[in-house]
Amino acid sequence: MIYTRSDLEKKINNAIDEIQWNLSPQNLYDPIRYVLSGGGKKLRPILTLMATNLFSDDIDLSIPPAIGIEIFHNFTLLHDDLMDRADMRRGNPTVHKIWGNNAAILSGDAMLIQAYMYITNVPINVLPEVLSVFSKTAMEVCQGQQYDMDFEKRMNVTEAEYMEMIRLKTAVLIACSLKIGAIMGKASANDSDLLYRFGINIGMAFQLKDDLLDVYGDAKTFGKKIGGDIVCNKKTFLLIKALENSDAAQRKELDKWLNAVDFDPSSKINAVKNIYNELNLKSLSENLIEKYYLSALDCFSKLSIADQRKEELLLLTEDLMQRKK
Amino acid sequence: MIYTRSDLEKKINNAIDEIQWNLSPQNLYDPIRYVLSGGGKKLRPILTLMATNLFSDDIDLSIPPAIGIEIFHNFTLLHDDLMDRADMRRGNPTVHKIWGNNAAILSGDAMLIQAYMYITNVPINVLPEVLSVFSKTAMEVCQGQQYDMDFEKRMNVTEAEYMEMIRLKTAVLIACSLKIGAIMGKASANDSDLLYRFGINIGMAFQLKDDLLDVYGDAKTFGKKIGGDIVCNKKTFLLIKALENSDAAQRKELDKWLNAVDFDPSSKINAVKNIYNELNLKSLSENLIEKYYLSALDCFSKLSIADQRKEELLLLTEDLMQRKK
Repeated sequence: MIYTRSDLEKKINNAIDEIQWNLSPQNLYDPIRYVLSGGGKKLRPILTLMATNLFSDDIDLSIPPAIGIEIFHNFTLLHDDLMDRADMRRGNPTVHKIWGNNAAILSGDAMLIQAYMYITNVPINVLPEVLSVFSKTAMEVCQGQQYDMDFEKRMNVTEAEYMEMIRLKTAVLIACSLKIGAIMGKASANDSDLLYRFGINIGMAFQLKDDLLDVYGDAKTFGKKIGGDIVCNKKTFLLIKALENSDAAQRKELDKWLNAVDFDPSSKINAVKNIYNELNLKSLSENLIEKYYLSALDCFSKLSIADQRKEELLLLTEDLMQRKK
Repeated sequence: MIYTRSDLEKKINNAIDEIQWNLSPQNLYDPIRYVLSGGGKKLRPILTLMATNLFSDDIDLSIPPAIGIEIFHNFTLLHDDLMDRADMRRGNPTVHKIWGNNAAILSGDAMLIQAYMYITNVPINVLPEVLSVFSKTAMEVCQGQQYDMDFEKRMNVTEAEYMEMIRLKTAVLIACSLKIGAIMGKASANDSDLLYRFGINIGMAFQLKDDLLDVYGDAKTFGKKIGGDIVCNKKTFLLIKALENSDAAQRKELDKWLNAVDFDPSSKINAVKNIYNELNLKSLSENLIEKYYLSALDCFSKLSIADQRKEELLLLTEDLMQRKK
């Protein structure tokens, strides 16, 4: 049986709804329940189940590690939001805004442990490999977050450094979700690695698309305010290329806005976006996204499975590339 | 071969010194190196190795999980110090004082992942059991820290609630250290469980002794300032019993100091200690410690191993009971 994206999303949501969290101490478990019921695309656990389903009809054993990956992802959002002092996530106030910083720290720690409990709930013959992929990935995600924070204080971040940061912060977890699914589906080592590389490429494209939507998205469909990255000087691909490619006048204008303390947000967004437009950064970014997408498809085409089994994951990938939010 | 405490301490320190941490990102790994080189008794990993050595001459396979438990313990100290806003730990400034709150959050997260990497570096036949003991314990430690923080805001904490809190926050990790060591030494399920219960009792006594030393320790040998718990109204066994057993006059005096905002610390320490003395709380606490110690010895005596193998762990336990710091 081949499952559709919406079949799998339902399976994941049901499994999360059915988790029996402790009732006490309430201040530890309430934030965890809150974070996990806050919505989100459930992209990573769906990828895990789809990866298993590429190789096997039996995907039920993959549900615990898929849930573990979703818990891990939400743990990173919880702690990142605290570190970034973000007030809102998916349209809701963040945990530290409701319960305070200490609850956000400790509930996050508990979520990381819970993530391990779910991820290690797999048959013993695959346990060492699943653990090894996950722990390596989890460390890399921490490294990526540290680079991201380091970059906030630097104006000379290179394109290569930025690419390595988003590989660590975003792409490896998407790749890990797929690889764990493949391992659970008893894929060959070669197929697992191909799916990992497919995931890295999709993940890079996914993050570049995120940066792009933040500036060029449609406010109505995007769900967040447009220009948030520009307002807070986030070192995105667009800003890094703007700093690299700007002429003297453009650089002077950029520096003015980057150093501005009191400013009207929409004036800053318009001014910076104007420079991005002059430098043609939208197409530059779209071309790079296309490059990663094609590399992903190249890895995917090499998988030793029937084309018919590949359709759902290809559909999901296309959706991610064309997404408006 | 039977190893002494100091043999094992050297093994642990060497293993920690030999860890090859990544060089980059520096802001992620520097705090981890700093925390792990900051000294400490290495009690928990020594217990793991001693527990293995009760049953087996070969303790080398237990070094990775022992190191993992020490990394986990130091992770909890790092995040607890941040949550408690503690400035000093083992005579050194805490991580958040040196590198800031975000570094403390993220380096702690990375340490928890590293702890898992070391703890799961065990033969596959014991991996599921080691993982299950550790993850359960790690969740309980988070629960204990949450109760401890919850108790700060409450004046009606009962003795039973306090005992459950220190069981979770302190005793289970000591018990877990021993049980993992026993599993690694191929102990029977009965012996592993006896050692776990031994560890719970030792852990309870250990924490009660900590509370006692904070008030009745010798400033010269204790290494920390005497009375720190009294100054910050920490809900220790002593304070809880004082609130429970005090007469009207003593309670009025206690409340005065508990609610005082501007006060001379040594006057507060003397006044509260005076009430503890009037209520005979030192002996009450010592009797309870003795009770846990005897329960521990009772569990220990039931282990199905030769008395000669038990000596080192008994010596260490006596040392813990008689410690002055």
